[in-house]
Amino acid sequence: MRDIRSAGKGTADLSPKVGRDFRPSLSIRVDLGAHGSLGPGKIALMEMISKHGSITAAGKQMGMSYRRAWLLVQELNGIFREPLVEKQTGGSGGGGARLTRLGRDVIGRYRAIEGAAASSSAHDLRVLKASLAFMLASRNNS
Amino acid sequence: MRDIRSAGKGTADLSPKVGRDFRPSLSIRVDLGAHGSLGPGKIALMEMISKHGSITAAGKQMGMSYRRAWLLVQELNGIFREPLVEKQTGGSGGGGARLTRLGRDVIGRYRAIEGAAASSSAHDLRVLKASLAFMLASRNNS
Repeated sequence: MRDIRSAGKGTADLSPKVGRDFRPSLSIRVDLGAHGSLGPGKIALMEMISKHGSITAAGKQMGMSYRRAWLLVQELNGIFREPLVEKQTGGSGGGGARLTRLGRDVIGRYRAIEGAAASSSAHDLRVLKASLAFMLASRNNS
Repeated sequence: MRDIRSAGKGTADLSPKVGRDFRPSLSIRVDLGAHGSLGPGKIALMEMISKHGSITAAGKQMGMSYRRAWLLVQELNGIFREPLVEKQTGGSGGGGARLTRLGRDVIGRYRAIEGAAASSSAHDLRVLKASLAFMLASRNNS
């Protein structure tokens, strides 16, 4: 019953689920002061880079231009002491990209923060859901 | 050592803290599917309405127009079965606004979710902070 309309939105888990057939969820942004922030969009982009080995392909998967994806990578790499994403120049592949060890660690910590928050909020989210307005089932909720 | 430059930004706790003298923090949005979402801005607006007894005054505190504040209140009131904010018409005050019981409950649950996430993420946030790039102390960090 999960829909997959979040694809291409640029952030994870933001699909507009309809009717009562959905689970409330949290979107978490880690605010790092003057260093910037880490939110679902940047994390998903890094995961896509890890999966596809390419900034271009990762951006495409998320519906963003190469330029936008590249700027986000630059931003990410500027936040920490070492880059999170490194380009692999040369070779027959013509220059892919991959995560560094720190990049993988940052993703792991973000997902751990998210998982712990999801667990600790489960009861409150159920109570909030029970107070939501009734909505007519939409065309997608047969 | 905390700065208070977040005032008037429209969302809580987003001040660009400088140097190493800050604590990473989480910004949480509760995604409620087709019902919308609850984030730091709407919650802070409700708290300001509770404090000032007026949508106008609350909006002003947050640097937003009356229209913007009023639209956010309309949006909030449409999410749940009952309004979160009610206008008090008439009387010598000339029409203030206050939170309903459900409004107070929703704020309490949001703050509880946030508090639990802050606790459970403390260790990961410390580790992330330790990996941040070094930054020159800014003019505000004497």
